[in-house]
Amino acid sequence: MVKKGRKRINLKAKGTNAERELIHIFHKHGWSAVRIAGSGSSRYPCPDVLAGNGFRRIAIEAKLISASRKYFTPEDLEQLQIFARTFGCEAWIAVKFPDIPWAFFNPEDLGETNTAYVATKELAERKGLSVEELLEVVKLETDESSKLTTALNI
Amino acid sequence: MVKKGRKRINLKAKGTNAERELIHIFHKHGWSAVRIAGSGSSRYPCPDVLAGNGFRRIAIEAKLISASRKYFTPEDLEQLQIFARTFGCEAWIAVKFPDIPWAFFNPEDLGETNTAYVATKELAERKGLSVEELLEVVKLETDESSKLTTALNI
Repeated sequence: MVKKGRKRINLKAKGTNAERELIHIFHKHGWSAVRIAGSGSSRYPCPDVLAGNGFRRIAIEAKLISASRKYFTPEDLEQLQIFARTFGCEAWIAVKFPDIPWAFFNPEDLGETNTAYVATKELAERKGLSVEELLEVVKLETDESSKLTTALNI
Repeated sequence: MVKKGRKRINLKAKGTNAERELIHIFHKHGWSAVRIAGSGSSRYPCPDVLAGNGFRRIAIEAKLISASRKYFTPEDLEQLQIFARTFGCEAWIAVKFPDIPWAFFNPEDLGETNTAYVATKELAERKGLSVEELLEVVKLETDESSKLTTALNI
């Protein structure tokens, strides 16, 4: 019993740290982001993280996992989407798989099994967004160099 | 020491319960609302509560107090306003004074001392909004009856 309890606490602490990492990443890109209290236990639908930059607002269900696939119940997604609709924001699933950066999935892009939805490392490569893609971070240098090339071609 | 520790924990629990009460009130009016984790200790500016209804979004600094006045430092207000500007939402101060319902203050409406801002019960009556006023809850019955009167007058 003690061991199980400790394991749960460790998993919870790891999840909290993963959410904090996301918060730092958003702030690094000039967004505000906050962790939601009691997101796993609240009687109302609520996400793990909420972020905004004055133009866009994003509700995130964030999962840190040690496997290469993560299942979501239809209820998981429904709760996230109910929150996003009521609050007025986009709904995204963020999964931190081992050895690759955070991948952001549009809930509609998740795979489907008979009873659940699933995010895999392979799907992350095909349909997942990096945080830079999600936040539409403009890579100024690349943009500038492509503009120059275009100008020269004209 | 033990007594002081307990007192702090009790105050924290009361504060959390007060925030939960706010969350319920917002949901009762069809809004989504969440409590922010670590709002008192985060390294980034963040409010106590965030609420939205698809059109408006509100960041709230919420205080439950047993006195009839509550002081805020310029930093308290600045942090709330920095968050609101970056995230993209309105900034409000909610104070639960003894014996009256929650009062919502526009930060600009707070009183000023030499070194701080202050919300008082008296100010709550003059400039504070009730939750219904803040959320612009339409009183259908009243509206309908005034429409009828207007129609009859025409």
